[in-house]
Amino acid sequence: MWRATVLTLFPELFPGPLDASVLGRGRAEGSWALETVNIRDFSDNKYGSVDDTPAGGGAGLVMRADILAAAIDSVDRAGRPLICLTPRGAPLTQGRARTLSEGAGLIALCGRFEGIDERIFEARGIEEVSIGDFVLAGGEIAAMALIEACVRLLPGVLGSPSSLGEESFEGGLLEYPQYTRPREFEGRAVPDVLLSGDHQKIAEWRRKMAEDITRARRPDLFERFHADGPIRRENNKEPKR
Amino acid sequence: MWRATVLTLFPELFPGPLDASVLGRGRAEGSWALETVNIRDFSDNKYGSVDDTPAGGGAGLVMRADILAAAIDSVDRAGRPLICLTPRGAPLTQGRARTLSEGAGLIALCGRFEGIDERIFEARGIEEVSIGDFVLAGGEIAAMALIEACVRLLPGVLGSPSSLGEESFEGGLLEYPQYTRPREFEGRAVPDVLLSGDHQKIAEWRRKMAEDITRARRPDLFERFHADGPIRRENNKEPKR
Repeated sequence: MWRATVLTLFPELFPGPLDASVLGRGRAEGSWALETVNIRDFSDNKYGSVDDTPAGGGAGLVMRADILAAAIDSVDRAGRPLICLTPRGAPLTQGRARTLSEGAGLIALCGRFEGIDERIFEARGIEEVSIGDFVLAGGEIAAMALIEACVRLLPGVLGSPSSLGEESFEGGLLEYPQYTRPREFEGRAVPDVLLSGDHQKIAEWRRKMAEDITRARRPDLFERFHADGPIRRENNKEPKR
Repeated sequence: MWRATVLTLFPELFPGPLDASVLGRGRAEGSWALETVNIRDFSDNKYGSVDDTPAGGGAGLVMRADILAAAIDSVDRAGRPLICLTPRGAPLTQGRARTLSEGAGLIALCGRFEGIDERIFEARGIEEVSIGDFVLAGGEIAAMALIEACVRLLPGVLGSPSSLGEESFEGGLLEYPQYTRPREFEGRAVPDVLLSGDHQKIAEWRRKMAEDITRARRPDLFERFHADGPIRRENNKEPKR
């Protein structure tokens, strides 16, 4: 079973949003498991503190390497990567989420305060991953995003696996626009082609729209799409960056 | 007061992780406010459904424009942008989070299922924002990330505003490494310069490390940093993309 272990100062936040809808159902049915480790349990002092002032000065507090090491060493890694969510990390991609979903699970380390003592990253082989070029108050919401991106790809979690192949990034493109009833909404009609019943035409239109939207909104993705060709799911390759 | 309104099918997930630590304290002290709108309350049928099959066929269900319009129209926008979290959106940046934090707040629309009827985006002037190039099960965790990125920048929410200026992205660079006690950890020492007491040297070292880390990990950011110069906070400009 795919297992996520989260090291955090706020274990009470989990599963939180990871318990909603298909992910919650998947966990109840045993498609995946979630456990938390409270870093504070590894404090070496009566105050339960896990941080100290930054060497060299500066605002805030830094999480101590020795305490994090004790917390990490308490976890059975079982072939799972240890990932720290940080804006300095490698940007998370759909390809990386897919690769992770095909492994045994992951261990997520959530920082708080000003940061984490640098020495722990090398000492414990921690992979740094970023969900985007912005700063959060801690790693917890980023860990939730990472876990959700992986778990929804697990067999049986989403109802319709056929839909996975057509969503954003899976073909190297953003997704085409979707429409449903009513046929007319505030004077805006569903495009005729979608009501034509011509499956070939519909597929061509969707493909063209996906290309147009990607070219207009994300020239960076579009360029990579043309350079690499579509990401072939059977290869589980991430797009080259 | 800065206000976030979240339109969702899962209002019970909020505040969830947004209630932890400094953000929770900030909300209790009135630095910001959060409210949710249950999209399901605007269903027009006895089943409470808000979605229908995709025009043109395909797996899954699409959220209906007319029901979303009713949910959106129930909210007092009060000068706040209406943002839909979607992988097709503009990637969220720290600059965008800062600009949003300086406004009146935001309204976040969280999609579920296969997507949202395209017509609602234009009909209600919705801005599409992405937290990264991966797919989630819904917009809720992405909305939490967006709100947390904004709220931590509000005056009084973080204890030490001086620390904001030195973190990742604020100078256009990733953050320099941090160290704290113990001085030696598993044979790894805190770099001497940080223990020298020479503030000028420490600042130079940190600056060099930030540049080195950014160059090595994110050549894209480093190139932009050199092309644009640092993001000047007083201008609240986003880096050019």
